[in-house]
Amino acid sequence: MKGHPAILVSVTKGIEFETGETMSRILREHAPANRVAALSGPSFAREVALGIPTTVVCACESDGVAKTVQDFFTGRNFAFTAARTFLVSNTGGALKNIIAIGAGVSDGLGYGDNTKAGLVTRALSEMRRLGVACGAQAETFSGLSGLGDLMLTCFSKQSRNRDLGERLGRGETMAAIQASHPKLAEGYPTARSAYRLAREKNVPTPIIDEVHALLYEGKNPKQAVRDLISRAFKAED
Amino acid sequence: MKGHPAILVSVTKGIEFETGETMSRILREHAPANRVAALSGPSFAREVALGIPTTVVCACESDGVAKTVQDFFTGRNFAFTAARTFLVSNTGGALKNIIAIGAGVSDGLGYGDNTKAGLVTRALSEMRRLGVACGAQAETFSGLSGLGDLMLTCFSKQSRNRDLGERLGRGETMAAIQASHPKLAEGYPTARSAYRLAREKNVPTPIIDEVHALLYEGKNPKQAVRDLISRAFKAED
Repeated sequence: MKGHPAILVSVTKGIEFETGETMSRILREHAPANRVAALSGPSFAREVALGIPTTVVCACESDGVAKTVQDFFTGRNFAFTAARTFLVSNTGGALKNIIAIGAGVSDGLGYGDNTKAGLVTRALSEMRRLGVACGAQAETFSGLSGLGDLMLTCFSKQSRNRDLGERLGRGETMAAIQASHPKLAEGYPTARSAYRLAREKNVPTPIIDEVHALLYEGKNPKQAVRDLISRAFKAED
Repeated sequence: MKGHPAILVSVTKGIEFETGETMSRILREHAPANRVAALSGPSFAREVALGIPTTVVCACESDGVAKTVQDFFTGRNFAFTAARTFLVSNTGGALKNIIAIGAGVSDGLGYGDNTKAGLVTRALSEMRRLGVACGAQAETFSGLSGLGDLMLTCFSKQSRNRDLGERLGRGETMAAIQASHPKLAEGYPTARSAYRLAREKNVPTPIIDEVHALLYEGKNPKQAVRDLISRAFKAED
């Protein structure tokens, strides 16, 4: 697009520990002259590379940018890209990695699909609460970048975050897992950032708190999952 | 509870073809003197029987009845039962079986987890739209009886509805599947009822329509899934 500064498209996820900011917000801060968009949704890179139909949302602040990004990616393995104008935030994409660790622990301990589906459902409310406190739009959590990405990461065998949880649930220690996998799953650092952020914003996050206790406070996985289930299911809200 | 007529607890799902009514509404009609409640949520019977922690919602019209049902079931393999007072409807529990057939077709055709997660996310909006038109409360679709049950049925290998779809996706015909499985998955008759109901209520249901075409109109599975994906992903809403 002649005469316009380049559009930067963020496909990373995470929450900066010190500031609580998501990656696309940091990108915007460091490249103020550019226009920033973020792609988010259920999209394992491996499947995208294989050409498997994948749907993502393009988040950005103007319809024109969304349209340009959508036109660029549609057909390049992203068979369908829904475009939407909203705050570039992607809190959902970051938080879901933490939940996937909890879901994996449940799998590793031998709990069932019933247990995991209940847990993940409750987790979505928690993600929405924290995301909204950080400035994300509530309704985005019901779409591809919230629910869609969450269920993919928690149910697919391809998720590294779920896999990390499963190993913990089977009794491996964090130290042993770190030794065998130098590149740790994203949910590991994100749990620390989100835990801090929840305290700062004064938002109750029972599931994130249990995953944090498991990862950083040496809590026993069996006890963590028990507490996680019992705290998560007090009532529907 | 002395002096009170028995509480009838519905754990069935489905939509009556002629009337469009859910099972719990029919129960209430036929037993007007009794109080009716419905349990709904991600709960494969096999896992419940194995004692795996399972969470369901008790839907009924009074807090007292919800509390009684909750107290009765808590500890009887249902480790945790969230109680909630709302219209006894369970449209979500019925409709999710149709979506699971579509999700299974995607699996059977060799599409990925990305594809399925996108499809299921879109399906939830469709279920909510049709459910609300039939008198269900919109917010229940975000909880255990909507989203929770939907993701379980679409992602677990234990679901008969997903399995029916997978066989269709692999190229088996309905006639061959019916011959080998005299007890057909619930989503099969429900697709017919929901298709009729959507027309009656004038609600757009692109995913249900494609599953209906596949099951009842002899549509080719590959074409049905292609159309299903392309119709489902026009835009986020």
